[in-house]
Amino acid sequence: MTRQDRLCGVITPLLTPFERDLSIAQQLYHQHAAECLANGAHYLSPFGTTGEAASHSVAERMAALEALVVSGAARPDQLMPGTGLCSLSETLTLTRHAVAIGCRAVMVLPPFFHVNATDDGLYRYFGQLIEGVGSDALRLCLYHIPQMTRIGISPELAGRLSAAFPGVVAAYKDSSGDWQNTQAVIRAAPGVSVFPGSESVMVQAMRLGGGGCISAGCNSNVAAIRAVYDAAADGRYEVAEVLSGPVNRHRAALEGGGLIPALKSLKAHQTGDRRWLTLRPPLEDADPGVGAALAETLGRVV
Amino acid sequence: MTRQDRLCGVITPLLTPFERDLSIAQQLYHQHAAECLANGAHYLSPFGTTGEAASHSVAERMAALEALVVSGAARPDQLMPGTGLCSLSETLTLTRHAVAIGCRAVMVLPPFFHVNATDDGLYRYFGQLIEGVGSDALRLCLYHIPQMTRIGISPELAGRLSAAFPGVVAAYKDSSGDWQNTQAVIRAAPGVSVFPGSESVMVQAMRLGGGGCISAGCNSNVAAIRAVYDAAADGRYEVAEVLSGPVNRHRAALEGGGLIPALKSLKAHQTGDRRWLTLRPPLEDADPGVGAALAETLGRVV
Repeated sequence: MTRQDRLCGVITPLLTPFERDLSIAQQLYHQHAAECLANGAHYLSPFGTTGEAASHSVAERMAALEALVVSGAARPDQLMPGTGLCSLSETLTLTRHAVAIGCRAVMVLPPFFHVNATDDGLYRYFGQLIEGVGSDALRLCLYHIPQMTRIGISPELAGRLSAAFPGVVAAYKDSSGDWQNTQAVIRAAPGVSVFPGSESVMVQAMRLGGGGCISAGCNSNVAAIRAVYDAAADGRYEVAEVLSGPVNRHRAALEGGGLIPALKSLKAHQTGDRRWLTLRPPLEDADPGVGAALAETLGRVV
Repeated sequence: MTRQDRLCGVITPLLTPFERDLSIAQQLYHQHAAECLANGAHYLSPFGTTGEAASHSVAERMAALEALVVSGAARPDQLMPGTGLCSLSETLTLTRHAVAIGCRAVMVLPPFFHVNATDDGLYRYFGQLIEGVGSDALRLCLYHIPQMTRIGISPELAGRLSAAFPGVVAAYKDSSGDWQNTQAVIRAAPGVSVFPGSESVMVQAMRLGGGGCISAGCNSNVAAIRAVYDAAADGRYEVAEVLSGPVNRHRAALEGGGLIPALKSLKAHQTGDRRWLTLRPPLEDADPGVGAALAETLGRVV
């Protein structure tokens, strides 16, 4: 399978802007989505961790996904929404909906309340999900982020699911920041596109066959990340490494502020739209000072 | 406030039985609920951890709660359903529904995806929940189970919420198994009934003013737990301690098998109804041998 056939590229896990009453700021959301695509994202992933997915209802997520398409902000085949919840029935609801809309893929967390579930139990969960959707159009990205969910998706489980559902289990997002795990998944599941959750190890992963990256940083720096990706996808790894220098400094600056509030505060600073400062509870609103300081830092180091 | 006015007692976090197709086995569920009450439970808590709450959809939880009442298995004022999800809007939906039905109280987890939320962020979440429900009839039990949710409800946060919403923040379930935490909450939130998640420390907690217990063990041993409670509620602590001996041995035997599968397997053994062996993924079905062995152990040690 060539890179063209596989799910590969630079994927923006979209921030979700809110009105003061905490409803989704639709127009601002669509504008941000369209900008990310225009600036080089291959795909958008609404309702990942960066998009505060867990703080949305099932109904809100389906409505927001439809509105992204209807507004013209994105085509369905540019979307890989997060659809993983704790209950299989609700994960099925969101996943079937995404497939029905024509989304390129879905990104699925392990059911994250039952943190002591075994690999056999998780295999049963994902197997029933795939069989329950029952569509050849389903492409699934396993979403590994153990620092939030505690329960993760082991390389062995990824390999086992990929072998049982080849083509359907298409990708693995590794947000663990654990390079050993990233390498192990690439080895254990060779049919799967592995995406680090940070642009800082994208080239390293692509050298081993990784798919690109799905990174919060793509909300503020997608053009530069795309340039790195294009060089690496062409096999021009040395160019990619050189271009990675400022990309990595941008990423490091973001991480200093807590990714979601830092990115939202930066957006508020850059656009002058204070709605970007709002986060849903249990998170706290972003501090406007963080974005101003971050813009100054980025101007200096990048 | 006397013990009579407060939310106190022995509370069964109900197991949820399933048909082979994983739908809720309604009649079996109602029968089990009615039995727990007949055997001494003051209240039932549908959709706690023991009830595999996280593996149910919002719609399923509301329908099952209504059916418990409509079937006559329990009166609304005997119910304290779990209503805590990760999204404030869905937690509001379930909580409003429980209040509308007339439930005695609701049991609310912290929003458990955002494990790095601060106490200020959690205060904002619970405050918006209480204000969003906007009913004098709301009685809320804070549900602390950090081994599953990672994020917990600190004694300071319990005290702060209790001070801001006196009467409404009525209880705290401490499933941490950390006696230091139980004591600290009793001290920090004197208006709140603190319920350990295990009968094995119920008397100890009641001596300090604790409310009773909310324990998985009440699914298999509620009559004996109630006898301990009654003695302690009368101030006959020495009698309560003596009665606690077999209760604690029963509990210890259950813990050997993993609480949910052990309890379900024991129910299957006792009733001959194999539907009790079914768990929803990502959990695995219970091993029938565990229940048989457990029944033998209980016959020997209790």
